[in-house]
Amino acid sequence: MVLAGGIGGARFLRGLKSAVPDADVTVIGNTGDDIHLFGLKVCPDLDTVMYTLGGGIHEGQGWGRADETFAVKEELAAYGVGPDWFGLGDRDFATHIVRTQMMSAGYPLSAVTEALCTRWQPGVRLLPMTDDRVETHVLIDTADLGESSQAGGEDGGKDSRKAIHFQEYWVRLRASVDAHAVVPVGAESAKPAPGVLDAIAEADVVLFPPSNPVVSVGTILAVPGIREAIADAGVPVVGLSPIVGGAPVSGMADKVLSAVGVEATAAAVAQHYGSGLLDGWLVDTVDADSTQAVEDAGIRCRAVPLMMTDTEATAAMAREALALAEEVRA
Amino acid sequence: MVLAGGIGGARFLRGLKSAVPDADVTVIGNTGDDIHLFGLKVCPDLDTVMYTLGGGIHEGQGWGRADETFAVKEELAAYGVGPDWFGLGDRDFATHIVRTQMMSAGYPLSAVTEALCTRWQPGVRLLPMTDDRVETHVLIDTADLGESSQAGGEDGGKDSRKAIHFQEYWVRLRASVDAHAVVPVGAESAKPAPGVLDAIAEADVVLFPPSNPVVSVGTILAVPGIREAIADAGVPVVGLSPIVGGAPVSGMADKVLSAVGVEATAAAVAQHYGSGLLDGWLVDTVDADSTQAVEDAGIRCRAVPLMMTDTEATAAMAREALALAEEVRA
Repeated sequence: MVLAGGIGGARFLRGLKSAVPDADVTVIGNTGDDIHLFGLKVCPDLDTVMYTLGGGIHEGQGWGRADETFAVKEELAAYGVGPDWFGLGDRDFATHIVRTQMMSAGYPLSAVTEALCTRWQPGVRLLPMTDDRVETHVLIDTADLGESSQAGGEDGGKDSRKAIHFQEYWVRLRASVDAHAVVPVGAESAKPAPGVLDAIAEADVVLFPPSNPVVSVGTILAVPGIREAIADAGVPVVGLSPIVGGAPVSGMADKVLSAVGVEATAAAVAQHYGSGLLDGWLVDTVDADSTQAVEDAGIRCRAVPLMMTDTEATAAMAREALALAEEVRA
Repeated sequence: MVLAGGIGGARFLRGLKSAVPDADVTVIGNTGDDIHLFGLKVCPDLDTVMYTLGGGIHEGQGWGRADETFAVKEELAAYGVGPDWFGLGDRDFATHIVRTQMMSAGYPLSAVTEALCTRWQPGVRLLPMTDDRVETHVLIDTADLGESSQAGGEDGGKDSRKAIHFQEYWVRLRASVDAHAVVPVGAESAKPAPGVLDAIAEADVVLFPPSNPVVSVGTILAVPGIREAIADAGVPVVGLSPIVGGAPVSGMADKVLSAVGVEATAAAVAQHYGSGLLDGWLVDTVDADSTQAVEDAGIRCRAVPLMMTDTEATAAMAREALALAEEVRA
């Protein structure tokens, strides 16, 4: 059982499948960064897992399709229809067209995801965290948007803030401005998708891959019932730090960590999850001096290489995580 | 004012614009062959006019976009999602995505068409015949579908018939089986789109291009109010025969003519429109011997070359139509 975000989660899963090819793996995918673009339902994290494990991923960028073309995007731009900052390729568009058509016909996202996976055969059972709509929003200063403040006016509007979609923050703004809060809108009333709680209850081990602890794993845990089910499952829960040497391995996780008041260190992320949830935590060897702080927080901790440079290195990380799980189980 | 169907209508319009570049031309486009594919609203006739006059048409086939690629279609096939018989290219998909998104946002088709035309600048005012949903269905023998008859059973089901979408008849079956009826479903309760009746009332001349008289022009005339407005406009109404030498110039118009009991001859089509609607009719020079029959039906008739081999030949046809209009006006 793995809770997966985007690129980090997908790559970790590929290593895990390589380490234990016969293991029955269920993946709970983050849907908080789903977005409607051009009237189509786009699920970046689910698709990244599906494409990565199904052999369709653009290896260089870690998301989107290999051998991609951009005729549709060019045409949309010629029509003056935006946004232009989200790079949807032609092949990728087909996925969103199929998904949107099925959802319009009344199928829930979980059923649609299962249908899409019959093509991709990812070798894992991929479940969205919820069939309900959850949208991660990021609160920023309107001044940082480079737009004239609407709330401002005579007071100067210096303090006026605006919630924008996570994708706008992450992709359009490249997380270049401060995030004051990260809110999974709709999460409080969302229900776990069919199969999610059962899969947690039946899991032998729960792994948190080196995904973003706020906007990926954090969003999944924000769906009522999921955090509790994991904490109560009575099986080892082991995570891998997405922070190495005080900086996120990839992405811009430090910005959203700071929004929730968490330092961008391997130890701080473990403490953020907390010993009520986590039993074990892997930090990179460069962060070996932080293992004591994690252990002091009641979480078993080991320092091992955590750079997913290739599938073999990633498989080694997965084996370390499973070994730590057995250690805490014993 | 021109009532336009697909390829024939679009090519005629290009000739008309070449013949009288400064004329104010309003086009009423057929929407009866619109179809929802992959959850997207596709308007083949409107798009053919828009692409042809806007310089984006695939000249060889007469429909769809030039320089087209098919990545989306390939991917949809890989997902096992059909139909596979309708050739949507990537560039074309963008048009349908924009249209569908705008319609989902509540814009009527007429407003969407206007928006799409701001890009294409077709040089005419393009109005859909209606903003309401009209779908041309064709009644065929189920046996001809090569499917087991559902209505059949013990009686043999030899006479069981099925109504299929016009596009399925035209594109998938290539009109290879008999059509027993052509029904513009929804037409009886459709209203002319905003501007249609006003444009007819203000027109100096109304032209019926050499489009399909049943499924193109006939469908437009089936929208209550349009036929009456044209008949009552008090201006010359002149048509050009789509039948030359007893066969449709392009397409498979004879099949749908036979469904409405009209012979596939230039004279029979004029008589089908009738002198209550038509003031003048152009037949091809090879059909010169049929002019008398048309005149006898109370419709002024001339025989001129009617093959749209290039824009100049088509412009000459447009000039002949306008000359005939002035003749009947005098």
